Amino acid sequence: MEKKIVEVCFTPKEFDYFRDRFEIIVVIDVLRATSAICSAFNNGVKSVIPVATIEQAQEYQKQGYLVGAERNGEIVEGFDFGNSPYSYMKEELKGQEVVLSTTNGTRAIEIAAQSNAEHIVIGSLINLKSLVDWLIEQNKNVVCLCSGWKDKFNLEDTICGGAIADELIATGKFTSNEDASIAAKYLYQSSKENYFGFLKSSSHRRRLKRLNLNEDIKYCLNPNQTDVIPQLENGKLILKN
Amino acid sequence: MEKKIVEVCFTPKEFDYFRDRFEIIVVIDVLRATSAICSAFNNGVKSVIPVATIEQAQEYQKQGYLVGAERNGEIVEGFDFGNSPYSYMKEELKGQEVVLSTTNGTRAIEIAAQSNAEHIVIGSLINLKSLVDWLIEQNKNVVCLCSGWKDKFNLEDTICGGAIADELIATGKFTSNEDASIAAKYLYQSSKENYFGFLKSSSHRRRLKRLNLNEDIKYCLNPNQTDVIPQLENGKLILKN
Repeated sequence: MEKKIVEVCFTPKEFDYFRDRFEIIVVIDVLRATSAICSAFNNGVKSVIPVATIEQAQEYQKQGYLVGAERNGEIVEGFDFGNSPYSYMKEELKGQEVVLSTTNGTRAIEIAAQSNAEHIVIGSLINLKSLVDWLIEQNKNVVCLCSGWKDKFNLEDTICGGAIADELIATGKFTSNEDASIAAKYLYQSSKENYFGFLKSSSHRRRLKRLNLNEDIKYCLNPNQTDVIPQLENGKLILKN
Repeated sequence: MEKKIVEVCFTPKEFDYFRDRFEIIVVIDVLRATSAICSAFNNGVKSVIPVATIEQAQEYQKQGYLVGAERNGEIVEGFDFGNSPYSYMKEELKGQEVVLSTTNGTRAIEIAAQSNAEHIVIGSLINLKSLVDWLIEQNKNVVCLCSGWKDKFNLEDTICGGAIADELIATGKFTSNEDASIAAKYLYQSSKENYFGFLKSSSHRRRLKRLNLNEDIKYCLNPNQTDVIPQLENGKLILKN
């Protein structure tokens, strides 16, 4: 039986090469958008509407939605919250529809949405195991789209993509062809005993540390805290599992 | 004293971000262009003229130059040789000017030439130690420009860039800021005991193996065989050391 493919795309800028060759796209923005989205669903949020621009976010706000907006690690002025996972754990969000716009993550979701993939799902370390189990069950070609930082490679998304690739390949039913995926797998293998230590010098961790977001980082790097698998359907992230 | 910067740029496509912020650009195409160039100088070639297109290569051929041209791992029909390092070890090349056009490496050199760097030098594993020593001596900001494969990340160039970054940082006089450079350093550290084994699944090694170029690969992955440091000057690579 022919093996399915799993690849890791380092940044949205490189996604053209991968577009339309994979049935499943996993969008990853470990620090912090996709971790926050998983945290929101874990808290019982009904749906998350990802929007790429601040203007779109403002439109939703006018209509009375709860709206999160983050740029460069900080909450955009005038919005209810940013992309700290802790913002999404509040009681008042249960059962609600929430709108979210972030520097990198929601842009990556938008780029994924322009492909013809069957499934666009949200990946992070906090839902890693359940996501991997679901991907194995699906048995389809998978590309992990790392959000990066403003079209630049970042370590934490790559490690998460590498973790997914490594776990899928370990089943014997998947393989990778691209050097980027092989590198991601190696980086995951080097880091998995201690993500926090491995990422200590990463640019985004330094950036968030300056903003006193160390608690957020610890939360986002702590794997397997939830089994939600948010999926994009008609422009909204919802739970299907 | 402020530390100098050393960064690794994964592909020419990403070079815009790095352009004009570094005094020294090291162009790397381990399999095989920059290894072949070092091998040529080690054999006493007088200069190598890198050209990006086959048309330019043909122009030089008409003028009577010895011209190497490679595309997709193979010698382009009608040319004297491709980019196998062994082609450049021949007696008749000593003292000659040689023209070279390759899929990725000479394109990366051309892109580097469009910056305002003070020095554009040729890096490979075969001249690694002497290059690192020279870079330490210069004490300037360095970017390693990996040629990649058709604008895609490749492992062997990244590992070579990571080796340079790792060695410079080890002196305490250099530092890296970018996640790409940190990843390259980690990949080098994981691979340095056995490049050949580490790269066994890399896409380019598979590509060259199909073309029966295993001897070339072994040569290119065997570090510190020469102390040449080819530099670009007025469109020609020459030895200044």
